[in-house]
Amino acid sequence: MKTETTIQGLTASLSPARSSRKSIGFIPTMGNLHQGHLNLVREARKLCDVVVVSIFVNPIQFGPNEDFDNYPRTLEQDRHLLAEVGCDIVFAPSVEQMYGKQPRLTNISVSDITNDLCGLQRPGHFDGVAVVVTKLFNIVQPNFAFFGQKDYQQLAVIKQLVRDLNMAIEVIGVPIARAEDGLALSSRNGYLSEQDRQTAPVIYKSLKTAEHDLQAGQALSEVLAQIRASLTDAGLVIDYVEARSPMLQKVDQFDQDVVLFVAAKLGKTRLIDNLQVKHSA
Amino acid sequence: MKTETTIQGLTASLSPARSSRKSIGFIPTMGNLHQGHLNLVREARKLCDVVVVSIFVNPIQFGPNEDFDNYPRTLEQDRHLLAEVGCDIVFAPSVEQMYGKQPRLTNISVSDITNDLCGLQRPGHFDGVAVVVTKLFNIVQPNFAFFGQKDYQQLAVIKQLVRDLNMAIEVIGVPIARAEDGLALSSRNGYLSEQDRQTAPVIYKSLKTAEHDLQAGQALSEVLAQIRASLTDAGLVIDYVEARSPMLQKVDQFDQDVVLFVAAKLGKTRLIDNLQVKHSA
Repeated sequence: MKTETTIQGLTASLSPARSSRKSIGFIPTMGNLHQGHLNLVREARKLCDVVVVSIFVNPIQFGPNEDFDNYPRTLEQDRHLLAEVGCDIVFAPSVEQMYGKQPRLTNISVSDITNDLCGLQRPGHFDGVAVVVTKLFNIVQPNFAFFGQKDYQQLAVIKQLVRDLNMAIEVIGVPIARAEDGLALSSRNGYLSEQDRQTAPVIYKSLKTAEHDLQAGQALSEVLAQIRASLTDAGLVIDYVEARSPMLQKVDQFDQDVVLFVAAKLGKTRLIDNLQVKHSA
Repeated sequence: MKTETTIQGLTASLSPARSSRKSIGFIPTMGNLHQGHLNLVREARKLCDVVVVSIFVNPIQFGPNEDFDNYPRTLEQDRHLLAEVGCDIVFAPSVEQMYGKQPRLTNISVSDITNDLCGLQRPGHFDGVAVVVTKLFNIVQPNFAFFGQKDYQQLAVIKQLVRDLNMAIEVIGVPIARAEDGLALSSRNGYLSEQDRQTAPVIYKSLKTAEHDLQAGQALSEVLAQIRASLTDAGLVIDYVEARSPMLQKVDQFDQDVVLFVAAKLGKTRLIDNLQVKHSA
């Protein structure tokens, strides 16, 4: 496995693969990798000749009061994990390598689906994601790109971006990896106190209960209220508990597949999760 | 020369060239081609193995009161001209082919250098240009792209866009093609009455006089005032007469290379021109 820290180095490393028309799979990450990320690499490994993982904590997707400086940076550990699951090239550029010395004047924004859910609490976040992903796509020029369904809204934004701008990339969403107790894996789980870590699985449990209740005929509004009550009772501070269509349109009732979305704070740590509930028409 | 009207058809036509790693040169146009465009094709022909020209009147770069509906569409004539100068593939998609049936949610904006000169009178214009050029770049995936220096601000915006988003494309600016009397060639010149066509070369003449006066030591502000006076005397209605650095920064005096910019209306037709004036340090 190679590690490249410059665009020039990466381009040189990828040149033979490109010349021989090998398929390139790409997973953009911010590092501090867990099984969720490694599942993305395993999926890429199945489908692609060459697998590239980027590790870059992207400053422009963090708000002024967010955790950019404290975001965990664990490059050596990440490299070991990536080598084990068959990654070919790690791209770990500096901020200067990605953004240069001259000011960036170009912004990309995806409207409507970013002014909702996580986008409401994090103004500019998805613009920052759209810019860095576009830059990385242009640098790596992959055939396939893999994103986790845990960041469901991010996945939807990337799919929209790729479609709207005719990028020649197939975006693949990979199911959420969970701990045995159901907690969705996240780099931020490491911030949880031991006690909060015991509490956190209530999110997934309340989503699974909601799935059951919806499929048993309970009204969507009631089911959402029950999720809210369960989380509040367990001591979480809710940011949102919402239902949307798979394409992130608002829904009033369970008359099609819906995705249930939760974002809540436990201590100082913001956790998100989601569950797609199938409607049997 | 092939003509393709769909993205799929173009991709198929370009596939052999891509497989054999031939260099692809691309010239995006709105059609109604004149010698200015053909010069771009000639430049591409010198430098690239395969030359692609797109002809697409892009609705999203026209304002509500601009001339989208009346913009001249002369595909057959354009195809003949392109065949003569050695274009390999013409890409002439419909609006639906480019923008699809589902709404576009993604916007791209380049700040600062678009809030100036033509951008002030045409809000959203350069956003529309940035989006369509990004789409076309992603569809064609050229190695080189050619733009005329007549639309100097557009060329600067595209260069900034390509740099900011790490597009793997070299953008090449080609000098303005002019009629024998100096009028910069433009599709919009066809709108001029016979009398206005006689008047229009005053723009270039005033720019050349300004160049001479600047290099002879006259103050920049005076020279700009003289251009304004010449144009107004000739019956043009000035939109702007400005000087900027080659990177479009404001300048107060002629102590470096400057670009002189003119936009003015003659009858109902808006004409633009520019001239780079060298400073001998």
